[in-house]
Amino acid sequence: MDDRELLETIRDLIGRDETADDCAATAFEEGKILQVATTDMLHETTDFPSGMTEWEMGWMSVAVSLSDVASCGAQPTQVLVAVGLDRPERLRPIMEGAVACAERYGAKVVGGDIDSHTELTIVTTALGLVPQELYRRRSGAKIGDRVCCTGTPGAAQAGLDGFTKYWKNLVTPEPQVFEGQKIARAGATAMMDVSDGIAVSLYDMGAASGVGFVLYDELPTLAIADAEKYFLYGGGDFGLLFTISQENLARLDVPVSVIGEVVEGNGVVRGGEAVENRGYAHVWG
Amino acid sequence: MDDRELLETIRDLIGRDETADDCAATAFEEGKILQVATTDMLHETTDFPSGMTEWEMGWMSVAVSLSDVASCGAQPTQVLVAVGLDRPERLRPIMEGAVACAERYGAKVVGGDIDSHTELTIVTTALGLVPQELYRRRSGAKIGDRVCCTGTPGAAQAGLDGFTKYWKNLVTPEPQVFEGQKIARAGATAMMDVSDGIAVSLYDMGAASGVGFVLYDELPTLAIADAEKYFLYGGGDFGLLFTISQENLARLDVPVSVIGEVVEGNGVVRGGEAVENRGYAHVWG
Repeated sequence: MDDRELLETIRDLIGRDETADDCAATAFEEGKILQVATTDMLHETTDFPSGMTEWEMGWMSVAVSLSDVASCGAQPTQVLVAVGLDRPERLRPIMEGAVACAERYGAKVVGGDIDSHTELTIVTTALGLVPQELYRRRSGAKIGDRVCCTGTPGAAQAGLDGFTKYWKNLVTPEPQVFEGQKIARAGATAMMDVSDGIAVSLYDMGAASGVGFVLYDELPTLAIADAEKYFLYGGGDFGLLFTISQENLARLDVPVSVIGEVVEGNGVVRGGEAVENRGYAHVWG
Repeated sequence: MDDRELLETIRDLIGRDETADDCAATAFEEGKILQVATTDMLHETTDFPSGMTEWEMGWMSVAVSLSDVASCGAQPTQVLVAVGLDRPERLRPIMEGAVACAERYGAKVVGGDIDSHTELTIVTTALGLVPQELYRRRSGAKIGDRVCCTGTPGAAQAGLDGFTKYWKNLVTPEPQVFEGQKIARAGATAMMDVSDGIAVSLYDMGAASGVGFVLYDELPTLAIADAEKYFLYGGGDFGLLFTISQENLARLDVPVSVIGEVVEGNGVVRGGEAVENRGYAHVWG
């Protein structure tokens, strides 16, 4: 069983629509401003690669939640950081990295919790604000839209696999906070981040939007062996995946890659074949 | 080193005033409504006693954060729940308990995260709203105020120590959400919850308010051996500790115990002797 299957078992408790995206949204100013909220748990064994510094762990933890805020077009405002520490001296560099990441993207660390833990565990919660009309979700992709992504999908996974050139992509990911707001303003129809990989994210977006995708043969892959596999299935990047009409795409002033088109039906096809629906997942044996 | 000492090492990063209370507060509607936010990490070894059910773990986790919201006079609105699971089948009863607790107190579970973890770990984040003039903090206690508490301090610790009569106090604590709002409206000058015990909470409130406390000889203790120790030093209860003028206390329609008075100076004295400054704390060896 993986975490997606497990989520299905409790969706009735919280609501299907409420669990469809990475952020929860609530009216902040009725009809005008939404507040979004998201929380993410990271811990040493599965999320912090060996060789990563504490500062980088703090940065990455905040980046994960800011990326969720960015993916709905919102500006992050506040971050809470709960740290379960195996050794107390790790707290300060973790919090320095956390504060640096929040400030870089215009948010503020406003609180948290400190706990002792057998395994270093960091849980970040981020709040953000977005004008109602700019709020984006995984649903909303329209037939004929272009499919686009930002950043360099596959780079974080390549860094993890020993391509040292991409180590920084892995340990200090850059959530696309400002890009997300520009993309929403340009008229994107659906948006999410690709933290679990492009392929599985497309399947998620397709299911939420009730559409399918055709990917182009030419993809903006890295110049490494098995580059297409890294692009499609690598996790840990914090680029944004979005759909947008060709007309609106033309007026978007953010560097993006156009990787395919929205089509009727479901699934993800490339070169006449189905792209595998797999990516990063937590798995219980 | 314990978690209070450890917090001191990072208070400059987040701000001294910002880390003085359990909740962070932000203007929701400038000058009128504050939004408060708090996060708490619990995990099996140190927080969930043996014999507790998963439903109770979910309830307790949410109760801890709602108690922080209650302690500043706010109404909880939303809860996020991140669960690090050793076994996936534990998720559903945990979330049923979490949702039940949130709904009991007028809040809604709006999101969360699911992770695999060697040790069951639950991190709850709660948001709440409070009219600016009813927002209460640990600071604000005034010389001459009465010191009061709600609930039954010591009961949770007694439950943990084998007094089965108090087991429910331990595993399904009742955050004083509605009481907190009534106490704030009655004009309490300072308020906090006593999750780490009455004595250490008084020391925290005294430091934040720049005052001392004298406790009465007669305290509303349980009818068990060592009752005074349980009352002063037992953790895990979610009563509220607050200070209020005698005049305002008279018009408060919540059952409370009056346990002492606010005095000049600092520290906590009872029967001419200093009460020990100790309670529940996470400790690193």
